Amino acid sequence: MRIGILGYGTVGSGLIDIIDKNKDKKNIEIVSILVRDKSKYEGINHYDKLTTDIEEIFSKNLDVLVEVMGGLYPSLEYIKRALKSKINVVTANKDLLAESGDELLKLAKDNNVSIKFEASVGGGIPVLKPLIESLEGNNINSICAILNGTTNFILSKMYNEGLSYNEALKQAQELGFAEANPDSDVLGYDAARKLSILSTLAYDNRVYWKDLYLEGITNIDEKDIEYAKKLNCKIKLVGQSKYEDNKVSGFVRPVLVGSNSILANIENEFNAVVLNGDSVGEVSFVGKGAGKLATGSAVYGDVMDILNNRISSIDSFTKEKVDVNKVLDENCSALLRFKSNHKDEIFSVLKEKIKNYDILNEDEELAVLVYANSEIEINDILSEIQNKGYCSQVNKLIKIN
Amino acid sequence: MRIGILGYGTVGSGLIDIIDKNKDKKNIEIVSILVRDKSKYEGINHYDKLTTDIEEIFSKNLDVLVEVMGGLYPSLEYIKRALKSKINVVTANKDLLAESGDELLKLAKDNNVSIKFEASVGGGIPVLKPLIESLEGNNINSICAILNGTTNFILSKMYNEGLSYNEALKQAQELGFAEANPDSDVLGYDAARKLSILSTLAYDNRVYWKDLYLEGITNIDEKDIEYAKKLNCKIKLVGQSKYEDNKVSGFVRPVLVGSNSILANIENEFNAVVLNGDSVGEVSFVGKGAGKLATGSAVYGDVMDILNNRISSIDSFTKEKVDVNKVLDENCSALLRFKSNHKDEIFSVLKEKIKNYDILNEDEELAVLVYANSEIEINDILSEIQNKGYCSQVNKLIKIN
Repeated sequence: MRIGILGYGTVGSGLIDIIDKNKDKKNIEIVSILVRDKSKYEGINHYDKLTTDIEEIFSKNLDVLVEVMGGLYPSLEYIKRALKSKINVVTANKDLLAESGDELLKLAKDNNVSIKFEASVGGGIPVLKPLIESLEGNNINSICAILNGTTNFILSKMYNEGLSYNEALKQAQELGFAEANPDSDVLGYDAARKLSILSTLAYDNRVYWKDLYLEGITNIDEKDIEYAKKLNCKIKLVGQSKYEDNKVSGFVRPVLVGSNSILANIENEFNAVVLNGDSVGEVSFVGKGAGKLATGSAVYGDVMDILNNRISSIDSFTKEKVDVNKVLDENCSALLRFKSNHKDEIFSVLKEKIKNYDILNEDEELAVLVYANSEIEINDILSEIQNKGYCSQVNKLIKIN
Repeated sequence: MRIGILGYGTVGSGLIDIIDKNKDKKNIEIVSILVRDKSKYEGINHYDKLTTDIEEIFSKNLDVLVEVMGGLYPSLEYIKRALKSKINVVTANKDLLAESGDELLKLAKDNNVSIKFEASVGGGIPVLKPLIESLEGNNINSICAILNGTTNFILSKMYNEGLSYNEALKQAQELGFAEANPDSDVLGYDAARKLSILSTLAYDNRVYWKDLYLEGITNIDEKDIEYAKKLNCKIKLVGQSKYEDNKVSGFVRPVLVGSNSILANIENEFNAVVLNGDSVGEVSFVGKGAGKLATGSAVYGDVMDILNNRISSIDSFTKEKVDVNKVLDENCSALLRFKSNHKDEIFSVLKEKIKNYDILNEDEELAVLVYANSEIEINDILSEIQNKGYCSQVNKLIKIN
């Protein structure tokens, strides 16, 4: 089978290593690799296959085009051209799928070829294929996941080693887990894109990533960690979505997670996806969410599926975008932290309006764990407290089970 | 697609429920169901399809035969007949695969049909398909797994609720998690069969279940649980195998598991499989290891693969059985418990022969956690202690990371 590869960066080189390692067993021929600057790669494996000219890639009569250069442009254009030319596509590009999955899946279908994207969610973890194929008999009710290794690394360091957010971010950058501009990770965009891909496949409804409630980890501080420990919880950037009564709800946000839950024990660069299906119950998938060989492993698996003609048809991306509920419409508890000179007034509001609460701190700041009938109830109380001028600042951290 | 089903018990009825639930989406026609006694099923769905005559099943021009009646006989014979008749087979039967996988996979290949068996390992958890297909680019180095829900339930109850082994077993039986004769579960046979299937697929070498080191949970008592808690560990019946330098090692036995590890947090009837691949690193799969709908979900996934013509060829079962090393040939620690009136003599042996040890108890019995260069070293010391008559009884529980 003849494959072309767009990009020879981290994932591309991982994939090429795996192809080379398996070359006696599998009939895959790398015929062309697109790079920006050939001079960077002198002496590297397959140097003779490098090109800076996309036309050369498309002149090679490919069976599969692998896109591992990332970003929306020009990836989108190249992938569309491949699909229109009836070339199968494998991509690790979550941005592209989250943004243009509808267009790409439709093009693939119209041209009777496949586009596969296991590596776009959870890096090396096999999760999309099990979801689409193995769990096909299930209606998936919910997804609860840690989908971004960078933020999980930062939160692990803050929790386990007492680092501040900035110190942990710096360490992540030094180790190559975080980019120089970390916004896409720490603001939750990356996780939201992945959650939207998972949710779209799971609920057979197009869930658009910008419709999810989104909150990053940049406001998490040492005090939050301290309270989390008091509550026997961890703090994790969690992507959660649910499908109930034909309605989707979903968020990506930092939350308190009880320490016995599977997500609480996912540390550093690891990712985890917990699916709940009506037949299978709760199934979890855990592994490295990024990295050269881990992601390469997922891309290679997709290439193998195409080589072996193992096809699954996916209709969910081409459906209309659904409305997404952004607040928790169920019993929920939350850590609330107030900077306030009116603590007694806040207590009065809590006593009157909330089911129950525990006080964690009332010295330097007021910190309470409240138990409410829904997040809306909590938000209403916070509005009231702020509107009445009882506090200058408030932080809210939902606790999930 | 026309399917016949052998058995209408727990798994069979789960499968049928799932087929019925999805019947508007998928083109599966149940044409015949083999049962032992039709009168038991009056009024049930598909009653008109029931038969007690295997010839009727084979007269129906089936595309797929699903075997969910369990046991070796007559299942083996029926499945062989189906394969020879060029009918695809889906089975949940780990006994059959572990015992006769070589014969069955060869028959399938020779007749150009598939035999699929996702439900045979880990119940509803998608694990064989991810291992075979998604992780195809990896050499798998090790497997570490909880593969039997009954024993995990018993050990969870003993640890979390202070029940004795017999009380916990009784509760498992009352709840339907354990059979009247629980030997296959509590002696570790069931887990060993599953581990052999996983290991065969993972290492591309036939690993026969009787070649694994095997030890059940029947000797675990309250004292073991007490020491485990002291050591911040759980006790789990773990199936572990490794592939190093072309050699396989493997065991199923109760072990101490550090409380932060993923296996330590798998409770009750849940199962978990942790694979380590040379590209992907550590990936874990967690979910319900048994149950009507969970197992039905896995069987349904296999049926869907056949319906969609998603085939993977498996050669490992037909290879020659490999030798399996039964002891841990690496640094290892173990809890040793001695009934002894010669404690000082035992300490002398330990001081002379072992790297290091911690004393957990020296009052009623002598309990130590020893750190050794290998399990062989530990076994040699135990031989010496017993040969010299220093103890009347010794219990050994390995600790894994």
